[in-house]
Amino acid sequence: MQQFYMPVRVVEGAGCVRAAATLIAPLGKCALIVTGRSSKKNGSLDDVVAALEGNGQRYAVFDEVLPNPTIACVRAGAARAKEAGADFVIAIGGGSPMDAAKAIALLARQDIADADLFAGRYSPDVLPMVHIPTTAGTGSEVTQYSILTDDVAESKTSIATPYIFPRLALLDGGYMASLGHNTTVNTAIDALSHAVEGMLSVKAGEVSDLLAKESISIICSLAKKIAADRLAPVDRQKLLYASMLAGMVIANTGTTAVHAMGYSLTYYHEIDHGRANGLLLGAFVAFCAQHLPERTDAILQAGSFESPAAFSQMLADLLGQREALTDAEMKKYAAKAIAAKNIANCAYQPTEAELYQMLKISLEEK
Amino acid sequence: MQQFYMPVRVVEGAGCVRAAATLIAPLGKCALIVTGRSSKKNGSLDDVVAALEGNGQRYAVFDEVLPNPTIACVRAGAARAKEAGADFVIAIGGGSPMDAAKAIALLARQDIADADLFAGRYSPDVLPMVHIPTTAGTGSEVTQYSILTDDVAESKTSIATPYIFPRLALLDGGYMASLGHNTTVNTAIDALSHAVEGMLSVKAGEVSDLLAKESISIICSLAKKIAADRLAPVDRQKLLYASMLAGMVIANTGTTAVHAMGYSLTYYHEIDHGRANGLLLGAFVAFCAQHLPERTDAILQAGSFESPAAFSQMLADLLGQREALTDAEMKKYAAKAIAAKNIANCAYQPTEAELYQMLKISLEEK
Repeated sequence: MQQFYMPVRVVEGAGCVRAAATLIAPLGKCALIVTGRSSKKNGSLDDVVAALEGNGQRYAVFDEVLPNPTIACVRAGAARAKEAGADFVIAIGGGSPMDAAKAIALLARQDIADADLFAGRYSPDVLPMVHIPTTAGTGSEVTQYSILTDDVAESKTSIATPYIFPRLALLDGGYMASLGHNTTVNTAIDALSHAVEGMLSVKAGEVSDLLAKESISIICSLAKKIAADRLAPVDRQKLLYASMLAGMVIANTGTTAVHAMGYSLTYYHEIDHGRANGLLLGAFVAFCAQHLPERTDAILQAGSFESPAAFSQMLADLLGQREALTDAEMKKYAAKAIAAKNIANCAYQPTEAELYQMLKISLEEK
Repeated sequence: MQQFYMPVRVVEGAGCVRAAATLIAPLGKCALIVTGRSSKKNGSLDDVVAALEGNGQRYAVFDEVLPNPTIACVRAGAARAKEAGADFVIAIGGGSPMDAAKAIALLARQDIADADLFAGRYSPDVLPMVHIPTTAGTGSEVTQYSILTDDVAESKTSIATPYIFPRLALLDGGYMASLGHNTTVNTAIDALSHAVEGMLSVKAGEVSDLLAKESISIICSLAKKIAADRLAPVDRQKLLYASMLAGMVIANTGTTAVHAMGYSLTYYHEIDHGRANGLLLGAFVAFCAQHLPERTDAILQAGSFESPAAFSQMLADLLGQREALTDAEMKKYAAKAIAAKNIANCAYQPTEAELYQMLKISLEEK
């Protein structure tokens, strides 16, 4: 038995935020715009404000979301939402503002203690949301996940509930025109990792595979342009589409061992989330090639690679010099990862020793 | 600007109705099961009853849906729903029961006069629905359309509103094991027509095209087995998947000139809906090849055809002897079709004279 569910309305194309104003109008009287310090400086905030003003909707701005948002951050955002009387939320940014916005929309309506925040008991009473991605990576605009930094677990943990699917995702690649090279690379790798991991998940299905293969095909066909920092506007829109598809994939499949290990690289070494996934992805695909040859072949075929080694080489070209860890660190992260729920989600589950081997292959040794 | 929206949760696989019982449980206390005289005789009704009884949910059965359901039929169903105190609906069958169930779920909660039924003003208050297709054709399990026979318009007309998307679609190809040959052929052609027309719609988008191409690829790869009546159970499940994908396509794109003309063949000559589409589809693709070569090429490539003629030949092999119409009838149906909203939906809009030409090519002359 397989399932597919994707309740988010997706609107795509240049100028789509202003053009979709009529879809924003029914959501409420006052928006809380959730964004980061810089992710709104690309015309996106102007477009949102124009749409809201045209609709006669009020708004307040919460622009204090930092990368890898914490519980304290989303509590501050929820307080701002209540204070402003916001009855819907508009998220503008990469994964951090988009994920934070979901938790804010939840906490603005429900009192949940820190200890219960990741426990999975939520009511459907959540502010409706519009998500506007300004990077092509996380796919958060079409998922039911809010990934937050959890200092108790010393990792990233997710709020996962269908109640936090955005109502509307507005995808305008124009907002990425001046995105920095590193961010472009890391987010593209993040999206690729979602599509690939989705096909290696125990929950992979026909629809999710179809979307994943299209996403892999698009991202890999643009890999050389990404590495050379030569993306045309049409390529930016394609990447945004591919990352959205990969988001639809993980909304249905979840992620796997790559994310389980990657969270430690981000938590303890401040390695960007997408890059952390990319460092580990080649080793995971090579590992799966031994146990799930059909699935791995489908991934390689979608990206036009002849072997897992060719796939890893493409990633190596994007990643450059790899970070160095001590052997003790790698042991620790393998031990943390094996306990993560993403491991049970792998179509072929690695052992702790195998995770340790993947970390050894993926990183330099200090 | 393009949009994609598909809020139906799709569950697929052998035994999925009983396996998905937990997804049916939250929908209500008493189901109205809407079905036809025969479409439940394949194990589907037993599975639904077992799931409901396991959940402790009551049910009533309305099995009076005939092919091409009328307004009177859905009013009778709505009355039955009220009488039984049904708070949700389960549809079992092909397009007729599934489409009727949507109108019943609407009319059980809203008083709408016949004259206003197709006028597009509905409230969101509709009974939640579960759709269980027993043919692989209509895709109604994932659309917001309820197509009814409208004796005032002397045609088929649709209730179209996002409020009538089913909550849940349960796809078990096992229910089609003993489906008659004609029904198998006609419904497969219907699904193919949806996927092809979706790619020739003014609303075609990246996601709908991706789903349409996959659907075309699957159906055309099975065309010889369909014609020879040699479908294995795995092929039945694939066809059901393909027709569901094609339903997701038309939910986003609507249909085109083929449906606009086909409705007259069904209304005046009782030609099965899928067959009516199939009779016209080859001529429409050949027409579009002159004006939209890129889109047509993508369709032909998805189905592995070298030319529009090869595509038409595959349809001819499935259709056999074509029905004969008088010249006056063809003129009349072209005139009726040009006024239909499906024409404005064509990426390249044919004139009335061109519709008449397509009818002439598609049918024998009496």
